[in-house]
Amino acid sequence: MSETIEKLIADFAGPAVILVRPQMGENIGAAARAMLNCGLYHMRIVSPRDGWPNEAAMAMASGAEAILEAASVHDSLADAVADLHFVGATTARDRDMRKPVVNQAVLADEMISRTTEGQRCGLLFGAERSGLENEEVIIADKLIQVPLNPVHNSLNLAQAVLLIGYAWFEKAQTVQTSDGMSEDELASKGDIENFFSRLVPDLEKSGFLGIEEKKPKMVRNIRNIFQRASLSKTEVSTLHGIVESLKRLNKSAK
Amino acid sequence: MSETIEKLIADFAGPAVILVRPQMGENIGAAARAMLNCGLYHMRIVSPRDGWPNEAAMAMASGAEAILEAASVHDSLADAVADLHFVGATTARDRDMRKPVVNQAVLADEMISRTTEGQRCGLLFGAERSGLENEEVIIADKLIQVPLNPVHNSLNLAQAVLLIGYAWFEKAQTVQTSDGMSEDELASKGDIENFFSRLVPDLEKSGFLGIEEKKPKMVRNIRNIFQRASLSKTEVSTLHGIVESLKRLNKSAK
Repeated sequence: MSETIEKLIADFAGPAVILVRPQMGENIGAAARAMLNCGLYHMRIVSPRDGWPNEAAMAMASGAEAILEAASVHDSLADAVADLHFVGATTARDRDMRKPVVNQAVLADEMISRTTEGQRCGLLFGAERSGLENEEVIIADKLIQVPLNPVHNSLNLAQAVLLIGYAWFEKAQTVQTSDGMSEDELASKGDIENFFSRLVPDLEKSGFLGIEEKKPKMVRNIRNIFQRASLSKTEVSTLHGIVESLKRLNKSAK
Repeated sequence: MSETIEKLIADFAGPAVILVRPQMGENIGAAARAMLNCGLYHMRIVSPRDGWPNEAAMAMASGAEAILEAASVHDSLADAVADLHFVGATTARDRDMRKPVVNQAVLADEMISRTTEGQRCGLLFGAERSGLENEEVIIADKLIQVPLNPVHNSLNLAQAVLLIGYAWFEKAQTVQTSDGMSEDELASKGDIENFFSRLVPDLEKSGFLGIEEKKPKMVRNIRNIFQRASLSKTEVSTLHGIVESLKRLNKSAK
């Protein structure tokens, strides 16, 4: 059985579950079980509060230990999503952010068609109490809201993984996913992050970002524009070129 | 908020969640939260291991305390389902029993149409480790199996409530349930139980049930025939009449 799971983990091309700053080991273990229930095999963990490996997580994983053993641990969310092409972020509350909001079934359809095209997808889940920070949500292409009884719409971590994972599982049952097709032209999150890491200091220097208090919001809004655009690698190169040429223009004008 | 929940509990006409011999209070509390997430408000508890009320359940219920406060506690499953017209039983394993097995979405459709017709429905969930006994499953009209990854298809109690409840919630969103219509002719579980409580001793006396070891299985099979039949109240009266008239026949033949 355990060998089977390890093979499934190695072969899996579907979405990664990315736990951002998870607190209780028990919840990480329970999330691993929910993942296995739903045929999701790749876990990534960003800055777990209690370090890693985590005994409480292992104890709770009963049956899904292999998922924890294969999980990757990251210092930053940017690192955890660097190789992904499409990321959905779970959020219970509305965000002051122009991003498409979808339910788990719509998201599952999109992830399945992207996976079929050879793209790598991820699902972000925030810390137990606080959820995802706006700075973290910004990296996502879409927000996921699970429709629930409005008088009680909070879910614990493992239950959120279960409901969203189950929507994937249901759709995936009816689709034969093929392995990645030929070239994939879509820029990865790392490509886009690299672009921002050069753009933002430039904007800062230029004074474009305005007063200190407004900066984070400004930066978020700008990042969001490009995150939403589903940029190709070529387009990202083009953007780099545009920024560089604009900077040269500015220098020569001085 | 709490007043709202109490009103929702009082007005609710949808399926009851029936926990049979639940062990850990924490699981009862987590089940209450999952119910509230999915707009299910009526909990019934049969022979809870640690008695009732249960502090651990209350502590875990955060937000769903009102559901626990309104829950009814029963000494027997027969008592807990006596007023219901349709019962689905959750089961992870196959049963040696001729009962229709459906997934949670199909079951939700059926419960919604029955609720709309004024019938009362229930969902049985077994004890954490052992699940439902065959003697308990027999009372159900249908078995519910949640399709899950075959390498790991076990769910804890609250997660089973969540996935099955969510199927109800999704369907219920798209349907306006009306209050019960006029007369409802379907026999309740209590009516049927009453019939068996008279039939089985008669069969025992008659020697029909054969040797001691085979009796439970025989009785189960017989009960199952009638449980599956969706009997009306009139039909149950008819059956009572048939049994009594057969007994008279026997006496007069002696």
